[in-house]
Amino acid sequence: MVTLEPENKVRKILITDCADAKGLIAKITGVCFAHQLNIIKNTEFVDRIQGRFFMRTVLEGVFDDASLLKALSEVLPAQNHTKLVAADKKRIVVMVTKEAHCLGDLLMKAYYGGLDVDIAAVVGNYDSLRNLTEKFDIPFHHVCHQGLDRLEHEQAILKIVNGYQPDYVVLAKYMRVLTPEFVCAYPDRIINIHHSFLPAFIGASPYKQAWERGVKIIGATAHFVNDCLDEGPIIKQDVISVDHTFSAEEMAHNGRDVEKSVLSKALQLVLNEQVIVYGNKTVVF
Amino acid sequence: MVTLEPENKVRKILITDCADAKGLIAKITGVCFAHQLNIIKNTEFVDRIQGRFFMRTVLEGVFDDASLLKALSEVLPAQNHTKLVAADKKRIVVMVTKEAHCLGDLLMKAYYGGLDVDIAAVVGNYDSLRNLTEKFDIPFHHVCHQGLDRLEHEQAILKIVNGYQPDYVVLAKYMRVLTPEFVCAYPDRIINIHHSFLPAFIGASPYKQAWERGVKIIGATAHFVNDCLDEGPIIKQDVISVDHTFSAEEMAHNGRDVEKSVLSKALQLVLNEQVIVYGNKTVVF
Amino acid sequence: MVTLEPENKVRKILITDCADAKGLIAKITGVCFAHQLNIIKNTEFVDRIQGRFFMRTVLEGVFDDASLLKALSEVLPAQNHTKLVAADKKRIVVMVTKEAHCLGDLLMKAYYGGLDVDIAAVVGNYDSLRNLTEKFDIPFHHVCHQGLDRLEHEQAILKIVNGYQPDYVVLAKYMRVLTPEFVCAYPDRIINIHHSFLPAFIGASPYKQAWERGVKIIGATAHFVNDCLDEGPIIKQDVISVDHTFSAEEMAHNGRDVEKSVLSKALQLVLNEQVIVYGNKTVVF
Amino acid sequence: MVTLEPENKVRKILITDCADAKGLIAKITGVCFAHQLNIIKNTEFVDRIQGRFFMRTVLEGVFDDASLLKALSEVLPAQNHTKLVAADKKRIVVMVTKEAHCLGDLLMKAYYGGLDVDIAAVVGNYDSLRNLTEKFDIPFHHVCHQGLDRLEHEQAILKIVNGYQPDYVVLAKYMRVLTPEFVCAYPDRIINIHHSFLPAFIGASPYKQAWERGVKIIGATAHFVNDCLDEGPIIKQDVISVDHTFSAEEMAHNGRDVEKSVLSKALQLVLNEQVIVYGNKTVVF
Repeated sequence: MVTLEPENKVRKILITDCADAKGLIAKITGVCFAHQLNIIKNTEFVDRIQGRFFMRTVLEGVFDDASLLKALSEVLPAQNHTKLVAADKKRIVVMVTKEAHCLGDLLMKAYYGGLDVDIAAVVGNYDSLRNLTEKFDIPFHHVCHQGLDRLEHEQAILKIVNGYQPDYVVLAKYMRVLTPEFVCAYPDRIINIHHSFLPAFIGASPYKQAWERGVKIIGATAHFVNDCLDEGPIIKQDVISVDHTFSAEEMAHNGRDVEKSVLSKALQLVLNEQVIVYGNKTVVF
Repeated sequence: MVTLEPENKVRKILITDCADAKGLIAKITGVCFAHQLNIIKNTEFVDRIQGRFFMRTVLEGVFDDASLLKALSEVLPAQNHTKLVAADKKRIVVMVTKEAHCLGDLLMKAYYGGLDVDIAAVVGNYDSLRNLTEKFDIPFHHVCHQGLDRLEHEQAILKIVNGYQPDYVVLAKYMRVLTPEFVCAYPDRIINIHHSFLPAFIGASPYKQAWERGVKIIGATAHFVNDCLDEGPIIKQDVISVDHTFSAEEMAHNGRDVEKSVLSKALQLVLNEQVIVYGNKTVVF
Repeated sequence: MVTLEPENKVRKILITDCADAKGLIAKITGVCFAHQLNIIKNTEFVDRIQGRFFMRTVLEGVFDDASLLKALSEVLPAQNHTKLVAADKKRIVVMVTKEAHCLGDLLMKAYYGGLDVDIAAVVGNYDSLRNLTEKFDIPFHHVCHQGLDRLEHEQAILKIVNGYQPDYVVLAKYMRVLTPEFVCAYPDRIINIHHSFLPAFIGASPYKQAWERGVKIIGATAHFVNDCLDEGPIIKQDVISVDHTFSAEEMAHNGRDVEKSVLSKALQLVLNEQVIVYGNKTVVF
Repeated sequence: MVTLEPENKVRKILITDCADAKGLIAKITGVCFAHQLNIIKNTEFVDRIQGRFFMRTVLEGVFDDASLLKALSEVLPAQNHTKLVAADKKRIVVMVTKEAHCLGDLLMKAYYGGLDVDIAAVVGNYDSLRNLTEKFDIPFHHVCHQGLDRLEHEQAILKIVNGYQPDYVVLAKYMRVLTPEFVCAYPDRIINIHHSFLPAFIGASPYKQAWERGVKIIGATAHFVNDCLDEGPIIKQDVISVDHTFSAEEMAHNGRDVEKSVLSKALQLVLNEQVIVYGNKTVVF
């Protein structure tokens, strides 16, 4: 009999997403126990209206993935969406336009601690943020949209992005709308930061819209991108107070800190496999 | 020469709202000083885009209103909106439907401290909150909307409200839309609490809308009522965090504390003459 | 064989608190499943430093308590603290001094929705809040502290409190320090609201202390009472912003809303069996 | 007579700090008006307990500083502290130890927008942040504390700092206590970020202290440094929520965003001449 060496121990995250049924927690954790895996953290949620069961289980031990997944499939309802993911560093590509604050925060955190992520490359439709990106020894690709139609521009970007095989694409104030063709290439894997508390102020110039409406709070929303502009599943939102003395520009200026903080927290949740998309919503464990 | 007796000293609030011009603060405060009035607190704001000047001056002393206003009119631009208001307790009528939390908070604060206001009466389109209102020895009027068309129902309410000559009408979860006829009777004097962070989730069932959209924050907005539903000038807004585990009912349940807190704070600002409406916005000093 | 009638179905909450061990979630949920109990919600936490396991399991079904607890004791480590509690309405006694806002909020929520609790009685060391309490048809007991030494006064209160056999005692701005004798009578069952963000501003006049220190936030802390003043396990805390214009009195005035909100949320967590005390801390599920 | 050319127009900020007296606003704004200066923004505050008047006036026009200050001295009470400051970019030196997040945020904002400041140099008692600093072409000075006594070390730092003639010194997680000698060199001009909501958790390891106490919020405080550790005048504070699942390290990790945000906002207020120190408090306009 082989003795398990401690150095073989790893952490993996088991995500279960299936129809609700009796005894699911007992059955799933029972399988894990039978595989001598230790549960580090377990969180579950049942959507009783739709009869759907979600669970995130952080496991530690020596894994035989095929055996574990087979055993799980025998106790779970049919058509379950089970996945077992290594708790490893993920790779992202960041897309930007001209604003530096979100990109700068991601670079700082990837480089000096705060986000356990590998930023493989930055793609910009302007060249403005090349200098910032290259300070951190990360490749910057300028794909100018001028003279190209939308599809050509996106194909040029996609070619670069695909080359890095990223786990996620992060839109860090990328100010152009993506076509369904682009979105389809990374379903539930493109994360956007929108500078308003959605669903208010969808589309262009949300701070100008906010100023015109005379609101007393402004905010930011991180969401997955789907086919409808600013209507994808929301991951994280936050707001700050403003008053009548703020111009639209001052709202934008003051909103930057909340934008970068919301994007970075949402990305951390996604990287940790804490976010499950279902329908147009998210379960955030 | 008459010696001013300290007991004649009172506090009044001077609100100036006029076209911007050079030296306005010097001129206005100079007039106040010449009238031997002490400035307790002074706050000003200039909207540079529209060239508009706003100032709120809390004055203490012995007032000759006519003389002060005449002197001010001589230094201010034409067509100014100047008003001098005694810092006295104001009278309100509260309109409700079935939910008790906002009304209860207003009653508690009017009775036990927290809001310096005289609640003259409560009007409900249901009879449910009679018992709560009468605990505090305040008259409750049930004006049932059944069997009446909208205009008849509002006329019946207006007749009661007018009888109390209130300074403001407070809609403390009054769940019916008011017609322009009603609103015109109390221009910029009807305060509503809407249970969402406007402009998101206008209209009916905002918590259900919020649940369907999968937002991660919910909120409340206190605003003056104008002709367009939920589109009047915003006075105060606040939000709380929610997550995927909240049903629409739990959102509503948890939203109550923020609704009552936002309404009560907005009302306090209005009662203190800290809110100036201009266009579809407010200046909140 | 008896068919289980749906009407026999009830909800109970299982709290497990024991030394950490492998497979605990599988074992506990396995026992529940074997007893045909449905898990409505399950939350666990492991304190890895102290090697302690905590779990809260909301169960639905037909219970044989003795059989369930026996089966659990067979799979759990020795010296576990397991309890099975009916998800029923709990009974509290509220203790007050002169301030109305926390008591008023509890009364409103118990009466009109917001807290599922039975307020059995209110005890005050002043008579000021009798009127408010009796509006809600709840007995008020005035136990004046004058002319009594601390122990006599507390014995008089304890006699009344004990008479109601409350699940919890809530100090809703009760402004006297309790002796260890009193606290021992209700271990981990007395909830206090302190008007500062503890551990700052322990003891008397926290708003005055806050004003003197020139802080830019003030807050409130709900905690269980233990032998050391303001040092018991914290359940909930929140803050609001203040600035240089606030006097100590205005801080106190503005702090009321956050005090009552923090107390009411903490109480709701305790009533739902969401709070486990261990050492001088709480696990809040 | 010389016609004032628009290009001579500049902005200056007038700070008045004196004993309270009648008519001060009228007198000061009258002097400004007589000097043909336009008031862009005016904010005042009276501490009624100490009888002290504070005003911040943003002025625009063509300045004759000596004439203006002379005219003001004739209308103000004796022993006033009046200062007239150009609304120009200020120069700071940043002191650090090993943590990158606050420094990185200041560098990003100084370089890419968000803070209108000139970071003249960074001084570290470790060499760890040289690389980050030099990315932004800013000189980094490593002054190792090893082998030096406290005074020698500080003298070495002071020599470097003085060489840059900074308006302010910013301690961006500089983890050593400064002696009164150092503090005296920059009275009310050294800004520190402390990683707790002061006055709680003074001194070393505030996150560890917070974890041990079991608090449900953690925070950050930006303050001027005076002779007593963590007891200087507070400029800005903010908090975030934590729960029982956070280790002390996770509190520190999550506290970084609030630390950098509080420090950057406090610095912006100071740079804008919005902060007046008096006694051990601040007036923040």
